[in-house]
Amino acid sequence: MSKNRIWTAALVIIGDEILSGRTQDKNIAQIATWLNVQGIRLAEVRVVADDMNAIAEAVNLLRARNDYLFTTGGIGPTHDDITVDAIAAAIGVDVVVHPEARATLERYYESKGGINEGRLRMARVPEGGDLIPNRMSGAPGIKVENIFIMAGVPHITAGMLDALTGTLEGGAPLLSQQIGCWIAESEVAVLLRETEKAHEGCQIGSYPFFREGTVGANFVVRSTEQDRLEACIAALKTGLKELGHDVTDGGI
Amino acid sequence: MSKNRIWTAALVIIGDEILSGRTQDKNIAQIATWLNVQGIRLAEVRVVADDMNAIAEAVNLLRARNDYLFTTGGIGPTHDDITVDAIAAAIGVDVVVHPEARATLERYYESKGGINEGRLRMARVPEGGDLIPNRMSGAPGIKVENIFIMAGVPHITAGMLDALTGTLEGGAPLLSQQIGCWIAESEVAVLLRETEKAHEGCQIGSYPFFREGTVGANFVVRSTEQDRLEACIAALKTGLKELGHDVTDGGI
Repeated sequence: MSKNRIWTAALVIIGDEILSGRTQDKNIAQIATWLNVQGIRLAEVRVVADDMNAIAEAVNLLRARNDYLFTTGGIGPTHDDITVDAIAAAIGVDVVVHPEARATLERYYESKGGINEGRLRMARVPEGGDLIPNRMSGAPGIKVENIFIMAGVPHITAGMLDALTGTLEGGAPLLSQQIGCWIAESEVAVLLRETEKAHEGCQIGSYPFFREGTVGANFVVRSTEQDRLEACIAALKTGLKELGHDVTDGGI
Repeated sequence: MSKNRIWTAALVIIGDEILSGRTQDKNIAQIATWLNVQGIRLAEVRVVADDMNAIAEAVNLLRARNDYLFTTGGIGPTHDDITVDAIAAAIGVDVVVHPEARATLERYYESKGGINEGRLRMARVPEGGDLIPNRMSGAPGIKVENIFIMAGVPHITAGMLDALTGTLEGGAPLLSQQIGCWIAESEVAVLLRETEKAHEGCQIGSYPFFREGTVGANFVVRSTEQDRLEACIAALKTGLKELGHDVTDGGI
């Protein structure tokens, strides 16, 4: 497969706790950053309620138009954990107890009161699913077709991502470089637009901030090719300096 | 309109900086929490790239199936700020310069080098749009049909939400109460499920954590009716105590 092909993933975050504002999501940034290193671009994200239809709708659409689909949340032991059932329904397979997951959970809970109905829920997978190791707690993640079913708790998800590192086919990683200026981005909007236009294969993002009583902006150039990235950053620095602005490498 | 009708909103977060993992989103939790107080439920969220088609697809679908649609991001002065153009295209109207926004921006930038092409971009609105005041910086938000176009920078969005407080029709606010236990949620999964089943109009969410070397869980009951909420919390507390667990009011 060509290095020029762009590999994409989508993410479905499952959880009333995110939609109610109770919990601040941390998985978007964590998974996006990890995907970049694998050479896969996070193309879209949806946050849906703990609802079978909402999950199935998002899963089926997004897995069809992306190489990979990740989900987070809803794989615990309680009644509101319906992700496995919803994904099995979405792809039209049964839910089965995975023998290896069951054995892992039985071992994990041996000294913690033993297995029970709720705990056994975490051994259920859509038929044909493989396990993603979870070294933080007993319950594994699941890979089924092009879907990766991950935990909602960020540090457990981190462990599962670690287990997947290097196992997904991707393209050239998206590289980025940042510079910063103590200026209002609105002063240099034309320069940004013209510089991006002159550098094919590069995108320039502009991220304003307000700190220490003064406005500033960081400019991020992204490209899959190091030489193009460097040429674009160099042109942008020259342009900013010609307009009389100091530039901080790496951003402010 | 009946107090029993459930009012919903969707949120579209526009920005490559979220999808690339560069920026940690804070607007989902902020807007969700604010909507709860207005009696409006955040039903779904999408994060889309700075791409006209992606924005238009999400906006048109979500505004049709929710009472309100909020967007964040992409309303600044630079070339990657295309939200106004994308939403105007999505709803089939022209982009026009709003005279009041232009006057506000001219005043705001009078002592900051004056108006220019980039700054004037922030006075552009989909035709028929009204302004949402922004007391933090010159550029206003925009209300057009049932769409609320907000800033991406969280503290600017906060000011815009403040300006909108009390102006949107909603239903009964979603109430919630939390209790906590130093137990694994998997020990009480059956109790949670049965208690929810026995209390119509209540949802129980279970949020496990791992702290001080021990597992615990907070249980959140949500309902639009205070008496139902209290009855469900009371039943859950009784059930947990009968199983021999200490309960902390308000959560751990």
